Amino acid sequence: MEPQFAAIDAGYEVKVRESFNRQAVMKTVKATIVAIQPGKVELAFPYQASLTQQHGFIHAGIVSTVLDSACGYAAFSLMPEGAAVLTIEFKINLLSPARGEKFRAIGMVKKAGRSITVTEGELFAHTGNRQKLVATMVGTMMSVYDREGIKN
Amino acid sequence: MEPQFAAIDAGYEVKVRESFNRQAVMKTVKATIVAIQPGKVELAFPYQASLTQQHGFIHAGIVSTVLDSACGYAAFSLMPEGAAVLTIEFKINLLSPARGEKFRAIGMVKKAGRSITVTEGELFAHTGNRQKLVATMVGTMMSVYDREGIKN
Amino acid sequence: MEPQFAAIDAGYEVKVRESFNRQAVMKTVKATIVAIQPGKVELAFPYQASLTQQHGFIHAGIVSTVLDSACGYAAFSLMPEGAAVLTIEFKINLLSPARGEKFRAIGMVKKAGRSITVTEGELFAHTGNRQKLVATMVGTMMSVYDREGIKN
Amino acid sequence: MEPQFAAIDAGYEVKVRESFNRQAVMKTVKATIVAIQPGKVELAFPYQASLTQQHGFIHAGIVSTVLDSACGYAAFSLMPEGAAVLTIEFKINLLSPARGEKFRAIGMVKKAGRSITVTEGELFAHTGNRQKLVATMVGTMMSVYDREGIKN
Repeated sequence: MEPQFAAIDAGYEVKVRESFNRQAVMKTVKATIVAIQPGKVELAFPYQASLTQQHGFIHAGIVSTVLDSACGYAAFSLMPEGAAVLTIEFKINLLSPARGEKFRAIGMVKKAGRSITVTEGELFAHTGNRQKLVATMVGTMMSVYDREGIKN
Repeated sequence: MEPQFAAIDAGYEVKVRESFNRQAVMKTVKATIVAIQPGKVELAFPYQASLTQQHGFIHAGIVSTVLDSACGYAAFSLMPEGAAVLTIEFKINLLSPARGEKFRAIGMVKKAGRSITVTEGELFAHTGNRQKLVATMVGTMMSVYDREGIKN
Repeated sequence: MEPQFAAIDAGYEVKVRESFNRQAVMKTVKATIVAIQPGKVELAFPYQASLTQQHGFIHAGIVSTVLDSACGYAAFSLMPEGAAVLTIEFKINLLSPARGEKFRAIGMVKKAGRSITVTEGELFAHTGNRQKLVATMVGTMMSVYDREGIKN
Repeated sequence: MEPQFAAIDAGYEVKVRESFNRQAVMKTVKATIVAIQPGKVELAFPYQASLTQQHGFIHAGIVSTVLDSACGYAAFSLMPEGAAVLTIEFKINLLSPARGEKFRAIGMVKKAGRSITVTEGELFAHTGNRQKLVATMVGTMMSVYDREGIKN
């Protein structure tokens, strides 16, 4: 039931990986790419005590960090060659405490437009065999071209 | 023109500092408390390459991390003794790239209710003498009592 | 793939219909109930020139009005007897102009909690046999009890 | 403390009034223009039973309708001649029940960009001499040019 998209840039997977590898913060949170499809990107990261809030759960902002990257790269995968992606805004709802051994963030394109792409994300916590939905995101991304200092 | 609040918990400053000190992620981003007033908390953090996205700016999720803590503690400062604070949801708008030498996040209570507190945040980038508004947040916080695993 | 919920109030359908019938604005926009299931409510309304913005499309706020009712009643359908539902906040993304002969709003519960219920909504425009996704909503609802002036 | 803007289209007030007058829904809710400044628009509307939800308050979607127009026109007032304004998304927080004799919606530009303008809105309820903040909005607006069917 998910929207199916076709990438107009045949190099979509390479460009997503290259850009992801330049996001130093992804190394800090130990995030890795699980899967890249046109319009859908899945990332994962392990629990780290250095990323927690006062109750020992992963901080909502770190949850946002990985979801924003997943959503941004889902949008980027559908953009033409030469476009860079910027997050204009996002909203996150925190449904359950982010506790678990590892976390999986899925970003998906809901609507890809010429300049604006709307994305949705879900973050799951995994503990043993169980998974739980922790947070949902809606993010608005923009394609930009030839903007100073911005090149994906 | 900002709303003025009175804290009903005389220990508001101490409890905010203690809870902030338990947020390990604040150490990871090197955030410090600049000021605590009833309903208003200001945090700051320096540029770190380890927190950047692909263009070398601070990642939107890290901007969210510090803004969410500033807003959450602004809400917490007005809560009665014994309450813990949870972020239900937030929205962030990214107005300018987060580039600068240091960043300042201000969280303020817009409306404090019995269970729901609405907050607003602003994050500024500082470079030399100049400051620039980078992002705004609206966050909805909840007071919780006696919930398993949650104690501020 | 949608979450499946069970209603804990056997009278969920009756209470949703009764509350909907008391929303005078639903008559103003000529909205009707298409379907009620536990955690999912579908409403519909026809194009009316009296609800348009400057380009002749249905105004985003009217789109929000019907989506908010669909989401609110989806949440309400899962609440215990005696609870009333309040919208705390919502976000709407406008994906396409709201032009069409009639419109269908679907509200669904994403996570039902003791006091907070997170909902998602989609609004479709119908023209002849074609349908188009116009807008998506994420709304946070709260169960309230014994609050002055509020009874669903 | 509000941002001060200069309009680059000298006809900003006339174009806002003309576009507002073409919004048929503004007549349905009996909204009128109170004031137009560059980057700031104030609208008002009276209580009408036909706009209420199940508790007799103005429906959150109607609150959104007037706030969205106030924010959209605040953005539009700063756009160059020939631009049209589209709402990409907005978020609204409901702080108090929308009960009162009349309501006042203020839309303000927070950041005006080449294509994206971020706005903030506040809606107040007035009863006798008292006023109460009912809702806040953050809305993202886009300038569009030469798009089919869209002309402000």
